[in-house]
Amino acid sequence: MTHAKEMIDTHPGTAAMDADVLIECIVACFDCSQSCSACADACLGEEMAGHLKRCITMCLNCSEVCTTTGRVLSRQTEFEPAMARAALEACAEACRLCGEECERHAQDMDMEHCRVCAEACRRCERACNEALSAVGA
Amino acid sequence: MTHAKEMIDTHPGTAAMDADVLIECIVACFDCSQSCSACADACLGEEMAGHLKRCITMCLNCSEVCTTTGRVLSRQTEFEPAMARAALEACAEACRLCGEECERHAQDMDMEHCRVCAEACRRCERACNEALSAVGA
Amino acid sequence: MTHAKEMIDTHPGTAAMDADVLIECIVACFDCSQSCSACADACLGEEMAGHLKRCITMCLNCSEVCTTTGRVLSRQTEFEPAMARAALEACAEACRLCGEECERHAQDMDMEHCRVCAEACRRCERACNEALSAVGA
Amino acid sequence: MTHAKEMIDTHPGTAAMDADVLIECIVACFDCSQSCSACADACLGEEMAGHLKRCITMCLNCSEVCTTTGRVLSRQTEFEPAMARAALEACAEACRLCGEECERHAQDMDMEHCRVCAEACRRCERACNEALSAVGA
Repeated sequence: MTHAKEMIDTHPGTAAMDADVLIECIVACFDCSQSCSACADACLGEEMAGHLKRCITMCLNCSEVCTTTGRVLSRQTEFEPAMARAALEACAEACRLCGEECERHAQDMDMEHCRVCAEACRRCERACNEALSAVGA
Repeated sequence: MTHAKEMIDTHPGTAAMDADVLIECIVACFDCSQSCSACADACLGEEMAGHLKRCITMCLNCSEVCTTTGRVLSRQTEFEPAMARAALEACAEACRLCGEECERHAQDMDMEHCRVCAEACRRCERACNEALSAVGA
Repeated sequence: MTHAKEMIDTHPGTAAMDADVLIECIVACFDCSQSCSACADACLGEEMAGHLKRCITMCLNCSEVCTTTGRVLSRQTEFEPAMARAALEACAEACRLCGEECERHAQDMDMEHCRVCAEACRRCERACNEALSAVGA
Repeated sequence: MTHAKEMIDTHPGTAAMDADVLIECIVACFDCSQSCSACADACLGEEMAGHLKRCITMCLNCSEVCTTTGRVLSRQTEFEPAMARAALEACAEACRLCGEECERHAQDMDMEHCRVCAEACRRCERACNEALSAVGA
């Protein structure tokens, strides 16, 4: 349960894009940020952590890009489309790279935390791309 | 919907504290982080933003302390109780201060975003205090 | 005085780009992150804070994008050019937008903290663009 | 070279504590944040990364606590001593734990990046403790 929808609904201004698209993107960013931090740590806890260095790195990067993007989008008072686009593009790319890496380990090594994390990444990548369409080019 | 529970459930190690307490604390931290970023921005969007400087500041501080704490707790492989305690204590205090400030504006100025944010802060303060008990002194 | 150069020099791997360009970019990102957090707060402390809402917002966004980018670049073990490019492009844009906004207040309102912050933003924008050239398209 | 001193000097308000102590603490926090992110990555790049899991974790935690604390201290307009104390105490503890861990590897395994990072951690721990004295109990 999160308060993101209520926070957008009670904002004194008008959301700069479709509110449902905005809320889903903010929620997906914070969720993916947590999943990626947890997946980096779960990979570190695996016996074959040495084979998961790229996954750990993609997860750490993605986690931070997601929080940053979730915060940029949460700022609606002086929303700047160029800033939102730049953050969303970086976030979609971080989620794509991290999702692909996690997906690989979910399939090859049967790593369940990577499967869950890949799911969070793909959801966030999709939400960022939808927000990008909503912001306009 | 968040993936926090699934991420803890699929971690290769054993959670350093009761899993339900841990998951609720992580979810509350990331939720409160988002609410506080959004509330700082909503306050900035109010006509009387000049009267909300303390609220904006408490929200910005609380938002970052919450993400940091949510990440520290998400790291279970080499969980260090002394680190967890330090982060949880700072987070409980940040949430208490921010929650009180938001509560005041919810009552005095009827600010709905402050009411929602105060709710997220109190939930997170409670979750941090329960996690503190679970970690042990 | 920072330890960034020593950290890159003692890394077990080889930097993925010219070390001087990398170090300057990392240092500029962390410096700009601090300046922007401080400038957002200084703007909030001005009597005419109500006229500085866009500046506060650009500063908050830029501060976080800068830390995230500084961390992405600090990760050299499994350096992924596509991730670095995405972060650097977002950061150059955040610094450009924030630098222009701060520059305006430095000139029109004679705000010294905005002048200093604009300097940090322009330095970081330049460093990101040089790192982008070094990473390759 | 950083702009932290100029940012504090040009702030419209009066610093809530001795300016030199404040500036050194802010600079040390952002420096330590970068060193710890870089050290976590350098440890991951070592052949015996599997033996450095605790060091990687302490570094990741310390890096985030440091940025958060550096930002909390950068906010001087509505400075709240209770918030500053909570952040500084968490940061001093994070730096102590991370500094001890890095120091161990600097000595036992002759890891140069851990030696540099331990230096950044000890400087930041000291700066946090001095800022704590300046804030008052």
